[in-house]
Amino acid sequence: MRSEIIQVNTGGRARVCDLTPDCERFVSDASDGLLSVFVPHATAGLAVIETGAGSDGDLLHLLDGLAPLDGPWKHRHGSPGHGRDHVLPALVSPSLTVPVLAGRMQLGTWQSICLVDTNLDNLDRQVRLSFLAG
Amino acid sequence: MRSEIIQVNTGGRARVCDLTPDCERFVSDASDGLLSVFVPHATAGLAVIETGAGSDGDLLHLLDGLAPLDGPWKHRHGSPGHGRDHVLPALVSPSLTVPVLAGRMQLGTWQSICLVDTNLDNLDRQVRLSFLAG
Amino acid sequence: MRSEIIQVNTGGRARVCDLTPDCERFVSDASDGLLSVFVPHATAGLAVIETGAGSDGDLLHLLDGLAPLDGPWKHRHGSPGHGRDHVLPALVSPSLTVPVLAGRMQLGTWQSICLVDTNLDNLDRQVRLSFLAG
Repeated sequence: MRSEIIQVNTGGRARVCDLTPDCERFVSDASDGLLSVFVPHATAGLAVIETGAGSDGDLLHLLDGLAPLDGPWKHRHGSPGHGRDHVLPALVSPSLTVPVLAGRMQLGTWQSICLVDTNLDNLDRQVRLSFLAG
Repeated sequence: MRSEIIQVNTGGRARVCDLTPDCERFVSDASDGLLSVFVPHATAGLAVIETGAGSDGDLLHLLDGLAPLDGPWKHRHGSPGHGRDHVLPALVSPSLTVPVLAGRMQLGTWQSICLVDTNLDNLDRQVRLSFLAG
Repeated sequence: MRSEIIQVNTGGRARVCDLTPDCERFVSDASDGLLSVFVPHATAGLAVIETGAGSDGDLLHLLDGLAPLDGPWKHRHGSPGHGRDHVLPALVSPSLTVPVLAGRMQLGTWQSICLVDTNLDNLDRQVRLSFLAG
């Protein structure tokens, strides 16, 4: 299995960061198999959504409503809202698997692989890409 | 890796479509390995739930409550509610991996693999099944 | 592919059970590859969260708010709230894939692999661990 870490700087605000170009590059020399995308952080997740037409903002707004920053979170380390960030990965999983054929991810036309990160206390994030050939 | 696409017609209403028979057939000649189920659409997801006892309707009702059709979605292409459809895959992921032993998925008794699709603008859907032997 | 089932007793209350030690042991002799964690039950899921700082309780509280025990669930078998338990796996998936290098899961410092189980009618649960080398 081939595996590498990419670095993402989220810039200090809640973000939906498109990782698709990094994933495309990572599998471009590959054959057929499964791409595993994995975020080794406890306050971020991965979503496969359309970007650039408003849905990235819609998703952050949805998450603010489902798990409000000022909710009665017991986890109170870090900045306000950090307790909320810690339940996010239960709804938006940090693990994703994508089929790859002849070095191309089999995504749909409007799908992008996105890091969803509402944590404002940690701007330098890692994402692990792994490819298992088959 | 063996991979194929199956076609699903959702019939023009929000649907939970049971894909289990298709998945069973796809792996029936396989040995041990992982089945990847992947939906190449930006407005649908996959859930492993019990079907036939009301939970499929319960799930659609739940999603209508969490992400209402008439919410303040910025994504406003397509029919009313299409903005909601575009955040669905962040909560109900389009990617699922199921362990297979001797050609049989290791599902529990009451588990079915289901396409969750609330998009009324695209009735002809595809689902990619891939099997990685190990 | 190597595969085994572990047993978990949830003790008769809603629980977030840390499976990380079991997963670590399972892959400790492995090389590189993907670990598949799969719950063969229709009323439980898997989350990768921090444990021990309040987020496990926060998650159960969040789920109680998103999908209330006394909601208008059509699925009415079992104890009160069982209809709610049956939609949980659509939000908290029973399937998870984790990259493994040289016998070590590539989790982040604060990540634990957890069974999320709100079902009070079935205390003896199984979780399937499978490792696909690559």
